[in-house]
Amino acid sequence: MTSDYATLPDHVTVQQALDILRREAPDKETIYTAYVVNTQRKLIGVITLRELILAPVGALISELMNHDPIFASVHTSQEEIAALIARYDLMALPIVNDDQHMIGIVTYDDAMDVVEQEATEDFHKTATIGKLESSVKQASVTLLYRKRVFWLVVLVFGNIFSGAGIAHFEETISSYLALLFFLPLLIASSGNAGAQSGTLMVRALATGDVSLKDWSYLLGKECLVALLLGLTMAAAVFGLGIWRGGADIAVVVTLTMVLVVIVGSLIGLSLPFLLSRFNLDPATASGPLITSIADVTGVILYFSIAAWYLNL
Amino acid sequence: MTSDYATLPDHVTVQQALDILRREAPDKETIYTAYVVNTQRKLIGVITLRELILAPVGALISELMNHDPIFASVHTSQEEIAALIARYDLMALPIVNDDQHMIGIVTYDDAMDVVEQEATEDFHKTATIGKLESSVKQASVTLLYRKRVFWLVVLVFGNIFSGAGIAHFEETISSYLALLFFLPLLIASSGNAGAQSGTLMVRALATGDVSLKDWSYLLGKECLVALLLGLTMAAAVFGLGIWRGGADIAVVVTLTMVLVVIVGSLIGLSLPFLLSRFNLDPATASGPLITSIADVTGVILYFSIAAWYLNL
Repeated sequence: MTSDYATLPDHVTVQQALDILRREAPDKETIYTAYVVNTQRKLIGVITLRELILAPVGALISELMNHDPIFASVHTSQEEIAALIARYDLMALPIVNDDQHMIGIVTYDDAMDVVEQEATEDFHKTATIGKLESSVKQASVTLLYRKRVFWLVVLVFGNIFSGAGIAHFEETISSYLALLFFLPLLIASSGNAGAQSGTLMVRALATGDVSLKDWSYLLGKECLVALLLGLTMAAAVFGLGIWRGGADIAVVVTLTMVLVVIVGSLIGLSLPFLLSRFNLDPATASGPLITSIADVTGVILYFSIAAWYLNL
Repeated sequence: MTSDYATLPDHVTVQQALDILRREAPDKETIYTAYVVNTQRKLIGVITLRELILAPVGALISELMNHDPIFASVHTSQEEIAALIARYDLMALPIVNDDQHMIGIVTYDDAMDVVEQEATEDFHKTATIGKLESSVKQASVTLLYRKRVFWLVVLVFGNIFSGAGIAHFEETISSYLALLFFLPLLIASSGNAGAQSGTLMVRALATGDVSLKDWSYLLGKECLVALLLGLTMAAAVFGLGIWRGGADIAVVVTLTMVLVVIVGSLIGLSLPFLLSRFNLDPATASGPLITSIADVTGVILYFSIAAWYLNL
């Protein structure tokens, strides 16, 4: 935000306004948008230099100005400010305090930097990296370590559940070691499908393309998409199942594939909404967290289906 | 791009230029930046309305204008155009054809939309989703299916290598079934560390924070960061190894953890550079692709170390 913005009183003429702007221009961030304030410095209107130049020199600012300017408060996040500037194609957005007194402007070039920074931050979050205050190139080894270690360790403990799932089915596995061949492929597919739907939602929530109330509609659509994906991927592994494990294992693998892709996709779609609902940042959810949850469910589904179908 | 931009000849005075702009303003996208062109419509300078307003009315445009305007060609990608606008805080960027004749401008508000679109596209790519031409909310089931299925199926076949790795070590596994407990945790850690360094690089390459020539410097730094991360995560699983598998398995798991985190991180860091080097989009590399490669290496490293240390 900068406090070097151009203001005008509302009772002056266009000619007087142009003289004021000409006088003030050297010290102002922009003179292309001028803010009309009253004697208490309350924001009552906005007028652009283009409007001033096109207007008759004797017209009054109070008659020409837009009486309903778009503004933000000191409490508005920089992300929302950037979104307002982008939505209304503004050159600058006025910022007011709690008494509606104008205290500064944010210009489009700052907003552009914010859009890029926020995207970078969200990218990093989806890969469980904490907020980096410096560029990757300049970041020190210890800074990078600190921003990355927390979630990596948390996820280690998260993955213990997958391990416990496998350990629980040790008997099933030792009877059919061939089942292990398909384990990475099945849990990765679940995680990959989940990462896809999760990323779609995280980004759509960040850009405002979807909101919390859209969840049930999107869930219904995702069920269909995931079913189609699951069937395609099941078809892709059926032959592999026959070849590596025989007909019985092929059935288990195919059935598991359909189910884990659907379950993974629905987890991926829902987790960002759930986090948003509790005012947590959905970006954290789209990457490794979804994958870890999808892994556990994949392991349990796979070996449960195997134990049931193979009568173990 | 719009072709409704304001042009001035260089031989007019400030007063004449202001009159021209006033006359042309209603039809132009912006009059805050005016482009000075010669009789062949070649771009020879640029001047802002602010500069015109501050200058003496009798001064010549040719004396006031910036003779070295920043411009782009019709062949420049929209991503690069947006980056130029952001870097130089421009309100608009002139576009010239192969003969240096000016043919249009791209304004900052278009550039802002591009920055957001490109970030969305990169987000989707990192989760192996193809370019969506519509919003997620409006996309049909079949469109979403088509944009997601390709990489999911490719990755199924990629993960066959992990399965083959496991199958290769079936003897080791059947002798020490306890090893399976740690499998998800170790390969997920390798993939997660890889996704982190991969995402850092993909985003840094996209924003221009790093370039191809920085690879060796970043690789050296990543070796140190990954070593620290690996040691921390090894410490986190050592106790778990003792508890679930005894001292020998604890040693195998701890050693594997250090190695897979380092290998995963270095793959994650290098793959985006490798793709960039061959003019492929690095964004595709940061998510599931890195995870899949890290998985295979994780499986092979884990069971190789186990077979060696446990004398199998």
